[in-house]
Parts: sequence; C-alpha cells; structure tokens
Amino acid sequence: MTDAHPFKSHMERALTEARAAGARGEVPVGAVIIARDGAVLAQNGNRTRERADPTAHAEMLVIREACAQLGAERLIGADLYVTLEPCPMCAAAISNARIARLYYGAADPKSGGIAQGPRVFSHPQCHHRPEIYDEIAAGESEALLRDFFSGLRADR
Amino acid sequence: MTDAHPFKSHMERALTEARAAGARGEVPVGAVIIARDGAVLAQNGNRTRERADPTAHAEMLVIREACAQLGAERLIGADLYVTLEPCPMCAAAISNARIARLYYGAADPKSGGIAQGPRVFSHPQCHHRPEIYDEIAAGESEALLRDFFSGLRADR
Repeated sequence: MTDAHPFKSHMERALTEARAAGARGEVPVGAVIIARDGAVLAQNGNRTRERADPTAHAEMLVIREACAQLGAERLIGADLYVTLEPCPMCAAAISNARIARLYYGAADPKSGGIAQGPRVFSHPQCHHRPEIYDEIAAGESEALLRDFFSGLRADR
Repeated sequence: MTDAHPFKSHMERALTEARAAGARGEVPVGAVIIARDGAVLAQNGNRTRERADPTAHAEMLVIREACAQLGAERLIGADLYVTLEPCPMCAAAISNARIARLYYGAADPKSGGIAQGPRVFSHPQCHHRPEIYDEIAAGESEALLRDFFSGLRADR
C-alpha cells in the first residue's frame, strides 16, 4: 500500500458514520462501500434500534444499499470499510456479495466472526473470501465503543 | 415431541414458500416464524434475485418481517422453520433475534453454517443458541433443491 492509498479517508468516513450511530443511541459502528472506480456507493451506521431490525448492522445496510443502487446481487471489485470486526452475519453477507477487499478497525473478541469464533472465511463452506486488512484506525474505533458503553453504565 | 406438535404443518408451510421461490427462479428455500402463541408471524422464500439483494435469504426476510410486525429487535419465544440448514449469515441473524427454537430440513454440506463449517452457534462469540431440531421433512426439501438445480443444468 502506498501513501496515496485513500484507505484513511474511507475509514474516516466510516468513523463519521459510527459517531452518528452513537449519537442516535446505537452501538457506534459505521461502514462504507467504495466502488472499483473509487466512488462512494453507500455509507451508513448501525440502525438496529431505530428500525427494530436485528439485521440492520452497518455492513448489512451498506451492502443492501449498494446492491440496490447497482441493481445487482454482487459487488464485484468493491471494497468495504467498517470500524469494527464484522460479526458472522455480516462476514457471510460480505462473502455473498463478493466484496473484493475488507478493511476493518478494531478487533471484536466478544462478537467477531472473522479472526475469532466461527472464522467465517476459513471454511470450505465459504465460497468467496475477500482480501482482509485489519487494525485500520483501530484506536479511534475502540475509543468510540468504550465511550459509548461507559456512558451507558454511567446512565444506570 | 408429541403427535400433537404442529411442526409438520409449519414445515409444510415453509415448503410451500420454498416451492414458490423455485417457481420465481430463486433457489427453493422457504421459512416461517411462529409466535409463542402459535400465530404465523411471517412466511417467505428466497428473493435474492428478485430484489438484487444477497441478504434476502428466506430466514432473513421472515426475521425482518416478524420484527417489523412486533416493533421489536428480538423475537423472544418464537420458532423459526426453514427448509434448509441456514448459512452463517442466517444462523447469526437467528441468534441476534433470540429465536427460541430452530427447525430445519435438509443439511447443507455446501453452504451450511450450523452443523458444519463455521458452526456459528458453537463458539463463545454466539450470545444466544436456539434449541435445534434438524432433518424435519428433509427428503422433500432435498428433492426440491435437486430438481431445481438439475433443471438449471438442463437449461444450458
């Protein structure tokens, strides 16, 4: 990766979505999908509470939005940026959508599905494994989550 | 399980949705969610092609529909019937939705996420594991899938 790689600005965009999610009372996770040509196809944050939908994780929302935009089930050549390690639901959706590269921030020992637990991409039942770049702006992502959950505890 | 258990009629409903999905040109998988009081909360089949949405598996659709109906992120006490072993995306969504009991038909050695591959419910990162009843009307479910895919090959 050269200095010119725009992954920092894409992850900054995902972090902005994570902060907006936290401000809505959602677990602060944000995601962005970038098309092969560099265009932002979709950006969103967690909306599980707002939509009363346990599938409305940031990654799921941007995948669905990007596919709707393109009218296609597959996002060939696209990159997904997300501030936290995806859970197994989102990891499998990333595989189903044929995302080319996955950039994520903080590891998620509690609910992660990639580097721990079910390791969704590490079985023959996974038909597409993206290239994976982890620990991108992980400190900022972790700080957001820590502040959010310590705020919840303080409210009690 | 007693003879009076209605799981056969619920799975028959899921099979009807699977057949309808196949007739639409979708992989023939169907799902149903039954509330604690026995009411049918949602029923649907795969719609990934129709909606250009790689997350539109039968299980995801019925979970989202049932949650929308109840205005809740969790389907406490509800049962999910699906004709095929869920993939890891759907398995994790079933866990997130706190489904009480999962009844499924055929095993899916190719893409399953429960009894093989990532075994989503079998890790500490899984925060809720439903009771699982497999091989319910598995023969009918398998025959539907086999006919569908042999039909696709014959079309070529």
